[in-house]
Amino acid sequence: MDVLAVEVLRIPMAVDLAAIVIGALTGGLLAAREGFAVSGVLLLAVSGGLGGGLIRDVLLDVPVVALTNPVYLPTVGITAMVTFFFSGWLSRTTGLLVGLDALTLGFFTVIGAQKAQLAGLPVTSVVFIGVATAVGGAVIRDVLLAQRADIVQPGPYNAVAALIGASLLAVLAGPLELPLLPVAAVVIALTAGLRLVSVLRGWSAPVAID
Amino acid sequence: MDVLAVEVLRIPMAVDLAAIVIGALTGGLLAAREGFAVSGVLLLAVSGGLGGGLIRDVLLDVPVVALTNPVYLPTVGITAMVTFFFSGWLSRTTGLLVGLDALTLGFFTVIGAQKAQLAGLPVTSVVFIGVATAVGGAVIRDVLLAQRADIVQPGPYNAVAALIGASLLAVLAGPLELPLLPVAAVVIALTAGLRLVSVLRGWSAPVAID
Amino acid sequence: MDVLAVEVLRIPMAVDLAAIVIGALTGGLLAAREGFAVSGVLLLAVSGGLGGGLIRDVLLDVPVVALTNPVYLPTVGITAMVTFFFSGWLSRTTGLLVGLDALTLGFFTVIGAQKAQLAGLPVTSVVFIGVATAVGGAVIRDVLLAQRADIVQPGPYNAVAALIGASLLAVLAGPLELPLLPVAAVVIALTAGLRLVSVLRGWSAPVAID
Repeated sequence: MDVLAVEVLRIPMAVDLAAIVIGALTGGLLAAREGFAVSGVLLLAVSGGLGGGLIRDVLLDVPVVALTNPVYLPTVGITAMVTFFFSGWLSRTTGLLVGLDALTLGFFTVIGAQKAQLAGLPVTSVVFIGVATAVGGAVIRDVLLAQRADIVQPGPYNAVAALIGASLLAVLAGPLELPLLPVAAVVIALTAGLRLVSVLRGWSAPVAID
Repeated sequence: MDVLAVEVLRIPMAVDLAAIVIGALTGGLLAAREGFAVSGVLLLAVSGGLGGGLIRDVLLDVPVVALTNPVYLPTVGITAMVTFFFSGWLSRTTGLLVGLDALTLGFFTVIGAQKAQLAGLPVTSVVFIGVATAVGGAVIRDVLLAQRADIVQPGPYNAVAALIGASLLAVLAGPLELPLLPVAAVVIALTAGLRLVSVLRGWSAPVAID
Repeated sequence: MDVLAVEVLRIPMAVDLAAIVIGALTGGLLAAREGFAVSGVLLLAVSGGLGGGLIRDVLLDVPVVALTNPVYLPTVGITAMVTFFFSGWLSRTTGLLVGLDALTLGFFTVIGAQKAQLAGLPVTSVVFIGVATAVGGAVIRDVLLAQRADIVQPGPYNAVAALIGASLLAVLAGPLELPLLPVAAVVIALTAGLRLVSVLRGWSAPVAID
């Protein structure tokens, strides 16, 4: 466990927290825009910021970091309150949020895939956990709103970007044993870039061929 | 584990079972009223009676009490059968059910928060687990019915009442180290009271300020 | 753990994989027919093939076999790709799929119930885990599609068939201690038969009596 803790800390705390704040922000904003109660804003902020990691830890059968870390939940709570009171003003920064959201997708992919790798899982499971961490928060959100999960529908790359990023990381930092930090940087840039470009250009994930 | 088992038993078995029966009753009744199949009545009874505790134990990464305890599932099964055959008669006791339901919210909040506290989690996580235990069953129910989770929408205090109750318990029985039994009694009364009054008076959880 | 691994292997790997492939196939086909993106086809194939086992292992608080087994996820991935490219052709084999689907329900019921039995859970929990393993994939699918879970609605036996099968196994291979292999064969045949006949004859699970 000590080794695991040290390894996960390779991603600096500040970066980790930033990803959580942005996830919580986008979740909370959506709730505020939909006219939800304060409990709804909190819930969507929690699922946006911590939902992916929560699914990851439950699947990995390890203690849920979102609960054991004393900083994560308060951070999400404060972010939710900010969204609650300043949703109007924050909504006008959509352009910024799209960029930050893409970056978060990259970070969550890397954090998830790396944790699965440290748990000694096979390559495909590393990819699966990376994708689940990246899109898990959005899936929880869609489920609570009773709307079709975004990721099953045609639309800008989301799960697909995470899938490509996680696969790259699983191979480069796995069998090929390249050093993690540069690999992580490349994967984050690639995942975020794919997401961003697909939103801006209106790329759509391919649908089944009949 | 022995310590934990002893501590959790501070809440008498009969009270615990009563909360589960009422949760199962309200879940099963809803299913019966919606014209569900027998499997639906069972499923909603299980999620109403045991869903919150199940989410709690999965998040705490401990054995799921709903499965290890030999009495819980049979109790819920019998309750579901009662609802299945007497839903018409039971539905006419709505007033009683609203009161019992509020009491159950209080009990589940306390049972969840206490278990998180015994697991040594930080204060905010204790609050989170308390709320998740209290409203988890209702969330599972809404998800299975594909309706927007009750707790994200404006309406009578539910998650909000549990949030206030769990926060009080986390502080009083946590850092302030007051004895658990009186604290639990106060928190249950407060949570149930908030829920009950908000239903009767039509109070609504606040929505985001634009 | 060694004993557990040996015991679970009593069900031959090939049978296990066949059940997973059929589950993934029905999930992926549904996604393809609904015009989902490639990520949606993958997701529904994963939930159809591995969702039930995933819920089972999370509830049993044991490592998730879908992740630790190096063959399962690749198998599902390949199956998803086959559905993605040949959905039109596969859809015309509906009759075959209904039969295979019923068989899968039987297998998942037995695999789930047996694993719960080996974990030393009480009889009702064995039944619960058997049913959850059998219908868990379909529930995840319905939740992601934001449609009412099939199993709560009147319709052909599904959860009900699994419930009858799991109960039989829990009693025969539990307190009565009959040898597992013949019991498993009988339960699989019974569960699959109930499912198949109810689909063909239009039997419907009973609804609540008012």
